[in-house]
Amino acid sequence: MEQRRLFRRSYTKQGAAPGTLAVTDAGHPVSIGMIRFDAEGLEELELDPDAELGDLLQPGKVTWLDVRALGDGAFIERLGERFGLHPLAVADALNVGQRPKIEAYEDFYYIVVRMLELAEDERLRVEQVSLFLGPGWVISVQERPGDCLDGLRARLRKGRKQLRSSNADYLAVQIIDAIVDGYFPVLESYGEWLEEIETRILEQPDQAVLSEVYDVKRDLMTLRRAAWPMRDMLSSFLQEESELLNDASQPYLRDTADHVIQIVDVTETYRELAGSFIDIYLSSISQRTNEVMRVLTVSATIFIPLTFLAGVYGMNFDTSKPGNMPELGWSYAYPVFLGVCVLTAGGLLFLFRRLGWLGGSTKR
Amino acid sequence: MEQRRLFRRSYTKQGAAPGTLAVTDAGHPVSIGMIRFDAEGLEELELDPDAELGDLLQPGKVTWLDVRALGDGAFIERLGERFGLHPLAVADALNVGQRPKIEAYEDFYYIVVRMLELAEDERLRVEQVSLFLGPGWVISVQERPGDCLDGLRARLRKGRKQLRSSNADYLAVQIIDAIVDGYFPVLESYGEWLEEIETRILEQPDQAVLSEVYDVKRDLMTLRRAAWPMRDMLSSFLQEESELLNDASQPYLRDTADHVIQIVDVTETYRELAGSFIDIYLSSISQRTNEVMRVLTVSATIFIPLTFLAGVYGMNFDTSKPGNMPELGWSYAYPVFLGVCVLTAGGLLFLFRRLGWLGGSTKR
Amino acid sequence: MEQRRLFRRSYTKQGAAPGTLAVTDAGHPVSIGMIRFDAEGLEELELDPDAELGDLLQPGKVTWLDVRALGDGAFIERLGERFGLHPLAVADALNVGQRPKIEAYEDFYYIVVRMLELAEDERLRVEQVSLFLGPGWVISVQERPGDCLDGLRARLRKGRKQLRSSNADYLAVQIIDAIVDGYFPVLESYGEWLEEIETRILEQPDQAVLSEVYDVKRDLMTLRRAAWPMRDMLSSFLQEESELLNDASQPYLRDTADHVIQIVDVTETYRELAGSFIDIYLSSISQRTNEVMRVLTVSATIFIPLTFLAGVYGMNFDTSKPGNMPELGWSYAYPVFLGVCVLTAGGLLFLFRRLGWLGGSTKR
Amino acid sequence: MEQRRLFRRSYTKQGAAPGTLAVTDAGHPVSIGMIRFDAEGLEELELDPDAELGDLLQPGKVTWLDVRALGDGAFIERLGERFGLHPLAVADALNVGQRPKIEAYEDFYYIVVRMLELAEDERLRVEQVSLFLGPGWVISVQERPGDCLDGLRARLRKGRKQLRSSNADYLAVQIIDAIVDGYFPVLESYGEWLEEIETRILEQPDQAVLSEVYDVKRDLMTLRRAAWPMRDMLSSFLQEESELLNDASQPYLRDTADHVIQIVDVTETYRELAGSFIDIYLSSISQRTNEVMRVLTVSATIFIPLTFLAGVYGMNFDTSKPGNMPELGWSYAYPVFLGVCVLTAGGLLFLFRRLGWLGGSTKR
Amino acid sequence: MEQRRLFRRSYTKQGAAPGTLAVTDAGHPVSIGMIRFDAEGLEELELDPDAELGDLLQPGKVTWLDVRALGDGAFIERLGERFGLHPLAVADALNVGQRPKIEAYEDFYYIVVRMLELAEDERLRVEQVSLFLGPGWVISVQERPGDCLDGLRARLRKGRKQLRSSNADYLAVQIIDAIVDGYFPVLESYGEWLEEIETRILEQPDQAVLSEVYDVKRDLMTLRRAAWPMRDMLSSFLQEESELLNDASQPYLRDTADHVIQIVDVTETYRELAGSFIDIYLSSISQRTNEVMRVLTVSATIFIPLTFLAGVYGMNFDTSKPGNMPELGWSYAYPVFLGVCVLTAGGLLFLFRRLGWLGGSTKR
Repeated sequence: MEQRRLFRRSYTKQGAAPGTLAVTDAGHPVSIGMIRFDAEGLEELELDPDAELGDLLQPGKVTWLDVRALGDGAFIERLGERFGLHPLAVADALNVGQRPKIEAYEDFYYIVVRMLELAEDERLRVEQVSLFLGPGWVISVQERPGDCLDGLRARLRKGRKQLRSSNADYLAVQIIDAIVDGYFPVLESYGEWLEEIETRILEQPDQAVLSEVYDVKRDLMTLRRAAWPMRDMLSSFLQEESELLNDASQPYLRDTADHVIQIVDVTETYRELAGSFIDIYLSSISQRTNEVMRVLTVSATIFIPLTFLAGVYGMNFDTSKPGNMPELGWSYAYPVFLGVCVLTAGGLLFLFRRLGWLGGSTKR
Repeated sequence: MEQRRLFRRSYTKQGAAPGTLAVTDAGHPVSIGMIRFDAEGLEELELDPDAELGDLLQPGKVTWLDVRALGDGAFIERLGERFGLHPLAVADALNVGQRPKIEAYEDFYYIVVRMLELAEDERLRVEQVSLFLGPGWVISVQERPGDCLDGLRARLRKGRKQLRSSNADYLAVQIIDAIVDGYFPVLESYGEWLEEIETRILEQPDQAVLSEVYDVKRDLMTLRRAAWPMRDMLSSFLQEESELLNDASQPYLRDTADHVIQIVDVTETYRELAGSFIDIYLSSISQRTNEVMRVLTVSATIFIPLTFLAGVYGMNFDTSKPGNMPELGWSYAYPVFLGVCVLTAGGLLFLFRRLGWLGGSTKR
Repeated sequence: MEQRRLFRRSYTKQGAAPGTLAVTDAGHPVSIGMIRFDAEGLEELELDPDAELGDLLQPGKVTWLDVRALGDGAFIERLGERFGLHPLAVADALNVGQRPKIEAYEDFYYIVVRMLELAEDERLRVEQVSLFLGPGWVISVQERPGDCLDGLRARLRKGRKQLRSSNADYLAVQIIDAIVDGYFPVLESYGEWLEEIETRILEQPDQAVLSEVYDVKRDLMTLRRAAWPMRDMLSSFLQEESELLNDASQPYLRDTADHVIQIVDVTETYRELAGSFIDIYLSSISQRTNEVMRVLTVSATIFIPLTFLAGVYGMNFDTSKPGNMPELGWSYAYPVFLGVCVLTAGGLLFLFRRLGWLGGSTKR
Repeated sequence: MEQRRLFRRSYTKQGAAPGTLAVTDAGHPVSIGMIRFDAEGLEELELDPDAELGDLLQPGKVTWLDVRALGDGAFIERLGERFGLHPLAVADALNVGQRPKIEAYEDFYYIVVRMLELAEDERLRVEQVSLFLGPGWVISVQERPGDCLDGLRARLRKGRKQLRSSNADYLAVQIIDAIVDGYFPVLESYGEWLEEIETRILEQPDQAVLSEVYDVKRDLMTLRRAAWPMRDMLSSFLQEESELLNDASQPYLRDTADHVIQIVDVTETYRELAGSFIDIYLSSISQRTNEVMRVLTVSATIFIPLTFLAGVYGMNFDTSKPGNMPELGWSYAYPVFLGVCVLTAGGLLFLFRRLGWLGGSTKR
Repeated sequence: MEQRRLFRRSYTKQGAAPGTLAVTDAGHPVSIGMIRFDAEGLEELELDPDAELGDLLQPGKVTWLDVRALGDGAFIERLGERFGLHPLAVADALNVGQRPKIEAYEDFYYIVVRMLELAEDERLRVEQVSLFLGPGWVISVQERPGDCLDGLRARLRKGRKQLRSSNADYLAVQIIDAIVDGYFPVLESYGEWLEEIETRILEQPDQAVLSEVYDVKRDLMTLRRAAWPMRDMLSSFLQEESELLNDASQPYLRDTADHVIQIVDVTETYRELAGSFIDIYLSSISQRTNEVMRVLTVSATIFIPLTFLAGVYGMNFDTSKPGNMPELGWSYAYPVFLGVCVLTAGGLLFLFRRLGWLGGSTKR
């Protein structure tokens, strides 16, 4: 469960001084790409995490440092010193599980967003992406390799004019936008899952479907917990005023904020949908119990009196004594008995039909 | 489901640069009407989407460009260039599924509203209408041909004085008002549906009715999702201050905002109503299970002891041995047995009547 | 249902220009009373709706025009022209179903409040009352004749000093206060209804009571929908600053606002109460199903084994063959059999008593 | 029920002019105590409600007029005239059932708080206490004799320095604080009641417990309705600025506000607790129905086939005809039959044990 | 239950003057540690609670007075006089059960936070920690010995530069941060409990699990009641402006506030999780009742008609009379009867299989 992971990470910090660098996911070795561009050209290179960090920035150019995994945190620590990043911000980038937020430091912004992907088991995986936005540079830090930013890189390489000739803040907005757009296919997949669940819940409701509904609900809860603070973060971002931010990026940021609101909207709709599936499931169990009861009641109510009647004529009273079961000695008493049985059963069936108890199983 | 459509559209944008023009509904060829009027006169013409866009505006006149379908987006793109519309606004007009909103750009307003109609299958269809409001012109962009603006066009043609002699912003308010008024017949139809469902749920509650209640609830959810941000949009609109907006339009805008609040109100009422139907349905299933159980219990509790009694006198103990079933040899033992049965049954019936278990099915 | 009426009215406006005067309830002919007073004296007259509207106002006096039914709207239209009322405000007065609100126009206030009354069938009837408050005059417009303002009129006639010597705004506040006070007896009647329902739900819960609870809930919903925006309206009113409003009326307005908050409070309490009745009803059905099941289980579990036993001794195995049912030939086997039956039944009854299943129906 | 009382009181005002003095609880004759003190000394006297109200105030001293019952309202009316209290404030003091509030008049504050006590029947009783705070004087008006202010009076008499040497506003804050502290024992008693209910609901859940839970919930609702507006009132009070209020009283007022927030907090917790008891009750009924059903099913499923078997061998087919029930004539057929019965029953019991149906009643 | 303790403490104050020092937990004798440090060095000593309080402060050094238990309150009272603490703040430190809050007094801040720990019985224990923050000194007051501040003390002793060379406010922030970090292991333990409960609720749902779910829910409620006002407190703290607070501490305070928001977040998630477990439990009881009913219905519906049939052929009609049970005399009637039985049972089983009633228990 995502929420458990969330605090276990943070928990490693307990007792430590704030700003302590905790390596949270040492499984992936750190790997760093650098893209440096202006309107004229673009250069792309892979950085060696162990090499000296030279002067990466060039005046008039925008530099994007793309840290694709946390590694043991050492590189990011050096990076932080090189770019003058506040230790708390660096620590937050390493201690994944932060809520999406934007923090204004003296000469840079620290932004946390959450990237979604569907793991192979179709469950939701949430990854923290940290952005540092300074004058002329953007540093992005991901938890694990693999992301949804390849489209953005391709557009940079293709030299789309607007993207190339703009400032670092526009690049940061583009990165956030690409991550937010990555929510839509995830949402769509949950939409399809819900559609499939709806069919099954109407046709064959069992505990397994119900437990899937709860899985979806829980994932949607996680998703909402990722998207909701993104909304707050973006509206804070929109209200920031700084020389790092240009007016020209505002409409794009507003557009991204609109998308997040749409995502929150759809998530809420899906949660309500999942909630209504639970209601339908419960009511269909009640309905089926009712039907089962009706079948039992009809069969028992018809045959119990008849069985009593048959039992009566199976009694061994001495028929030679006066008053004792003269019927047994009558001619054609047996067909009369059978007729009474048929009439009783028929009458009860007619009554049950009028009560609407017989059409139950077909009506479902 | 509307919400699924909502994000599939937006999803096509993923990976693309913001402002990319995505054709979302190429089924309908673009068709453009133009109405240009002032207090003196009105001219109305059909524009050729492939022709050059000449100088459409005339000083002192209000021009309404009425794009009735998205087509392949090419025309709207050219229109955007011709009128200096921001690419993001044009992209939003093409990527339908935006939330109702108003965005102030430097020299125009971009407004998104949602138009409702009932499709032939009585389900809700939601269509995005985009309005561009500039000095002396209004551009409206719809998803599909067919709308609820014919009344407004007729009033323009008839030369209603107030409408004709007013500015572009008043025309925009009138368009929004007409779209909002189009919500009322839709709401009314859901009101009638709920009325019909109420009758059926009281008389013949089954799963089919319940599933209709959930259909209504889901549609009302969609409707609320359309109306709620309209409210926010209109209250933002009311607070806008710009030379594009005249004080004289304020009361009309306020009136439209009032209507939206009424719509939200009625929608909430209907949702609560639908919720109470679900409760009634569930309680009536419980009630019916209870009744079925009572019938079973009454019939079984009466006949099971009697059947035992009959079984006893059907036993084959050797009556010649002392102490063994002397009753079998008594005179008039059989009528006594029958009497005991009748008394037992009568006593139990009396008890059940006192417990109120017999009146169940008629009381319903 | 009130909410249906609400939008049907408004719906007639669709397609029409805003400000179109729609006659909504032509059943009652218009009738107009006029009260004109100052500290010295009061004159009261009935106006002829078809006559010319002369100069109704006198300097230094307060004029109250009391339009007691909408009629065909023509009179109110003329009135609007005579007093310079904005067409939208006049239209709202005629298109009943507006939410309570206050709108400040240039030289008058337009106020909508909702008047409650209980119809003969004990259901809630909501009526719109519009107030126009100008310098020295108040116009009140009601949907139907008959209101709760008679007490106020009587106080005016009796010449209560404070009322007579005050300004038009104080009169308007008094009218609103009288209408708000009219909510209390309605609330009280619902309180009594709920008290009666509570008794019945504890003693004889059936579907009829449940459906009454939902009736009450729905009416309370309507009531809340009337009272809630009244609260907002009054708090807006309290914050208005205008030469039409005197400081001396403020405490009285605040007092009225307090009453509305009390009404909303009590309504919420009643709604929670009604909700708890539904819970009690459902739990009592579960409880009763449980009891019915216990009776069935006790009777069946006792007699089914005994019936089996009796069946065994009713078998026709050839007792002359060795090993076959020697019991049948024993002396006193029958009393032993009966004893076994009694012991079994007694043991089971003892077990059921220990499980607490026997005291069920009396414990209820 | 408290809420019914609430509006019946207010209802007496309907139709009357605002500010009309309504006697609401004439059962207790009015009785007035007066305490006048400064740092040096304190004098305490009982006022005669019918005597002339002389000059009660002395410069440099704080006067507390303590009206312990409403009587017929006449005294309070005279008091209002004597101290120049606004008629609406006096009317609110008499028309009990006001929400806690603070109203700033020109030269005094009018404060309404609610005093709680547990009646002899352990149910909640709410009493309105009105405070008038003027320069150098405080008037408190209670509904009924008997309050929680004795501790405060004792501290005044004992001459606690801080209390004696402070101003009238400090005295008012102390009165409010004492009333708020009176909520805690009431809350504690509900806490104990809930604890007792919890034990019973786990051990012996029946309708009586459930109805007690609803009683507690309703009382807590009343309590919350008393405490919630107290919170708003105190935060308004904290923000008031007036020469009547000294900075030195602020921390004490803040402390009282803290207590009210704690009370609201605990009330909410208790309400959630009561809500969870209802869930537990309902689930335990379901659980018990399930157990009853299991007992029935086990006993019926075991004996019904065996009874059929016994019935078969009780049939009277003519065994002299070929093929007819040769078993009846076999030796040792009866022990074989019994063995089959035991095996069948044992097999079914084994199956039910594996399904976990047998341990039900002990597991509970 | 924690909430009961909460108000019992406060209740001891009732009737007493505000600021009265109430000893709330006299079980632990007071013990005081003092740490005084600057960038150069650190001295640590144990204070004697009965000794005179000399001049504890040294210019340029930060003094941390660490009161580890309340004792009889006398020491803290003396401390309050020595440091000029407001009596209300001192009283709040002694009357534990305060909500987390920050109060600005003239020359110091009073801060209440709540420290969590898991008691030996795995239930939540909440402890109040009061902080007094003055110029160059911090006083912390705990309820009981034993806390989560040892890590912080160790870091101080080790001479971590940043911590040593900073001001008193940074120390206070560090203490709050350590306490907040102490919430994470508690949350983790509840996460594990919920995981274990989830397994059990799916495999063996019984009342015991349900009651554990409610235990967890209640603890989480307590936890939320501790964390929620911490959030408000920290955001108030962030907005405080005083010479006591340095800008350099702001990022650390913001970091702590972030942690609290995470804690609230996770708590909410756990509460929703616990809520969904209750739903799953209830639905699984319904499901199992349904299964039990199906078994009963299948077995009863199959055997009841057959038993009737066997009963019929057990009747004693006189076969010598015409028309009476000729079947009894037929050859091979018995095998035919058995065949009919097998066919009937088979047909019903086939029907039940088609209704899906037979796979019930395995499908679960």
